Amino acid sequence: MDLKDILKNVDNYLDTEIELNGWIRNHRPQKEFGFIAFNDGTTQNGIQIVYDNNLVNFEEVSHYLVGCSLNVKGLLVKSQGKEDYEIKAQKITLLGACPEDYPIQPKRHTREFLREQAYLRPRTNLFTAVFRVRSVAAYAIHKFFNENNFVYVHTPIITSSDCEGAGEMFQVTTLDLERVNGKPDYSKDFFGKLASLTVSGQLQVEPFAMNYKKVYTFGPTFRAENSNTKTHASEFWMIEPEMAFTDLNGDMEIMEKMLKYVISYVLENCTSEMQFLDSFVEKGLISKLNKLVNSEFTRITHEECIKILKESNEKFEFTPEYGEDIAKEHEKYITEYFDGPVFIYNWPKDIKAFYMKQNDDGKTVAAVDLEVPGAGELMGGSQREENYEKLVSRMKEMNMETEGLEWYLNLRKYGGCVHSGFGMGFERLLIYITGVDNIRDVIPYPRTPKNCEF
Amino acid sequence: MDLKDILKNVDNYLDTEIELNGWIRNHRPQKEFGFIAFNDGTTQNGIQIVYDNNLVNFEEVSHYLVGCSLNVKGLLVKSQGKEDYEIKAQKITLLGACPEDYPIQPKRHTREFLREQAYLRPRTNLFTAVFRVRSVAAYAIHKFFNENNFVYVHTPIITSSDCEGAGEMFQVTTLDLERVNGKPDYSKDFFGKLASLTVSGQLQVEPFAMNYKKVYTFGPTFRAENSNTKTHASEFWMIEPEMAFTDLNGDMEIMEKMLKYVISYVLENCTSEMQFLDSFVEKGLISKLNKLVNSEFTRITHEECIKILKESNEKFEFTPEYGEDIAKEHEKYITEYFDGPVFIYNWPKDIKAFYMKQNDDGKTVAAVDLEVPGAGELMGGSQREENYEKLVSRMKEMNMETEGLEWYLNLRKYGGCVHSGFGMGFERLLIYITGVDNIRDVIPYPRTPKNCEF
Repeated sequence: MDLKDILKNVDNYLDTEIELNGWIRNHRPQKEFGFIAFNDGTTQNGIQIVYDNNLVNFEEVSHYLVGCSLNVKGLLVKSQGKEDYEIKAQKITLLGACPEDYPIQPKRHTREFLREQAYLRPRTNLFTAVFRVRSVAAYAIHKFFNENNFVYVHTPIITSSDCEGAGEMFQVTTLDLERVNGKPDYSKDFFGKLASLTVSGQLQVEPFAMNYKKVYTFGPTFRAENSNTKTHASEFWMIEPEMAFTDLNGDMEIMEKMLKYVISYVLENCTSEMQFLDSFVEKGLISKLNKLVNSEFTRITHEECIKILKESNEKFEFTPEYGEDIAKEHEKYITEYFDGPVFIYNWPKDIKAFYMKQNDDGKTVAAVDLEVPGAGELMGGSQREENYEKLVSRMKEMNMETEGLEWYLNLRKYGGCVHSGFGMGFERLLIYITGVDNIRDVIPYPRTPKNCEF
Repeated sequence: MDLKDILKNVDNYLDTEIELNGWIRNHRPQKEFGFIAFNDGTTQNGIQIVYDNNLVNFEEVSHYLVGCSLNVKGLLVKSQGKEDYEIKAQKITLLGACPEDYPIQPKRHTREFLREQAYLRPRTNLFTAVFRVRSVAAYAIHKFFNENNFVYVHTPIITSSDCEGAGEMFQVTTLDLERVNGKPDYSKDFFGKLASLTVSGQLQVEPFAMNYKKVYTFGPTFRAENSNTKTHASEFWMIEPEMAFTDLNGDMEIMEKMLKYVISYVLENCTSEMQFLDSFVEKGLISKLNKLVNSEFTRITHEECIKILKESNEKFEFTPEYGEDIAKEHEKYITEYFDGPVFIYNWPKDIKAFYMKQNDDGKTVAAVDLEVPGAGELMGGSQREENYEKLVSRMKEMNMETEGLEWYLNLRKYGGCVHSGFGMGFERLLIYITGVDNIRDVIPYPRTPKNCEF
């Protein structure tokens, strides 16, 4: 029996005997009775267990420490205190003891300390909330795409192509490194060639959009960048949808619709978790998210964006320039200026990837970034260049080899069409939804430079 | 507008003008009219488009080749032929041409040929079906666990521990291999130590079960085994649930419930796909699956299984022996003997992993394999050893180091409890559901020894 199911239909269980297995989160034993904050992990808040000296093992129970696992039988009753319901224990059985030096005591721990105890931190209120939100958000993403006729495609993790040069790559090998002398002979490696961990599934998912019309990937991606920031991890999950017969406007529509759907779903299905995060992590979190769900996203071109930035009287550290990228401070300004999420589209082609649709102005590409108040860039997408000659000539301009990407180029020859897609880092979304500001705290076991524990 | 949505509420659209984008799967132009087998990819069968010389571009349309992408406007009408519905075209616009040497012509291709065209093969009827079933089955798995209060945990892909020695591992590195001289200095590698691709998320997901009670992973796993068989891939997806307060019987219950749920969901939501696969890949596929869904799974011990095998009059290539593993031919015999799925549990401890619950007989562990008619072993699971001392002494017996696994062992100290879990290779399930017999044909871009294309 799950506590969650009992509380969902609490009237059915009121004043009846229930049985639960779970853990002691906190314990206040008194002389003739005691209170246990108890949770089986299916809810955020658990339930209070009240016991008294009618228990045959009252003395023993009063010594059970935080962290113990218990089997509890008792009556579900309305509580007189602040909790709505509690269990009046009839029988409490110890399943697994827990020593006094158990690290997760009911007090505030620093997140740095808890990172070192990554395998135990789900047992804190904070991480119980964060990782359930992660699970529910992942489900919401699958649900959204399923309801909108998208096909889920598992693009490969090990790859021999490097997408857009999106970032430094990890090498994957079975060569005996001790025996490599000078230039490695990759013909003897497992795949007979140099292989790496993927940085994006986009190129591999596009062919599936050319059959199913609407597809998405949702899987791990990797960056071997030696950067130790709050927002970089070496291993993270990405959502990459791709839609045939869809231009940049259609792309923005789906981006907006998906984001609102996922956030609404989390708000509806993680009520207690979000309340906890709102109270203890980011004040105003829920109203921030509700505001986003109810807002209409602004759409401006990169040129309009630069104009607004230039005409502002802000003293920026970096001067905004036409034809150049924008800085974090600019992102912040522009979302505050519009008091809501802003799509910035038609970016200077020289700062964007080769596969993006070249606009008629010869200067920009049909790329879009979504800037969100308090989060900065949350997603990026583009219409793809569907013209074979333009795509190849852009690759040549950028000194890219077409060798090895013939298959990708062929999509433009074999019934090609206008198509678009975008990418969203799942952890970036979770940072925004949970209010937790460090990517290490939204990943079960984070991988960063010099850190690969558990 | 998706064809799928139109056909779902076909009465709403009958005799009205609809507009679709999609591709020509086949084309039979006649003198004064023509038929196009057309699909936008949201359905298995697509829809027939009928056009005649009232089209202003009739002449041009009649020359459109297989593979072209089109925009079609026309009336949805009841068809007089064998199709139920068709579109009487009012306007047909070419979106993307396709040359005569397009490889995916409407004829039978060998699966070997199509593997080489992995990026185009979703456009065939076979792979349209297979990869939609893959997507729908993945969704069903998430849906099942979500409905049963499981939390989805993304266990790490890059790892420094090797689970159970479950298989050979790929190394992940950023060292410059050309400059490695002799023994590599892993303190200079990206993670400061030897890192590999995971073979299983089980050890890392167990700690989450010790908070959330019920959890699962669903992600890619890797084996660097140099085996070229129909059932081995170097990269494949695994589902690994883990349940606290659950013994081996509870484990088997969930295994059975999950399998029946996923198969039922696919049968209900991929009707046309399954009909196609039943007709062209495995005759009787649907009734095989329906039979499984409606069967009760037998449960026998390994000892009982060996007894049955020994008492049979079969001439096995390998003699069945107590205390030993069973061979494929034995799996086959035993599922035929019971005419249905069979759980074989309580395996000899010496052929199983260190973390499995040691039974009181001193000889067996609480492990279970599910054997399914026509598929062999589809899942494997076990109750985990929750006793710290027994677990450590088993590791010593097996010459395993406890160093680096202290965190895993600690779970037995900190409120440990009876818990169980299992693993299912997603592709193995797909082979069973689709009837396709080669793992290379149920993975979008398969990775196998010497093969890492696209």
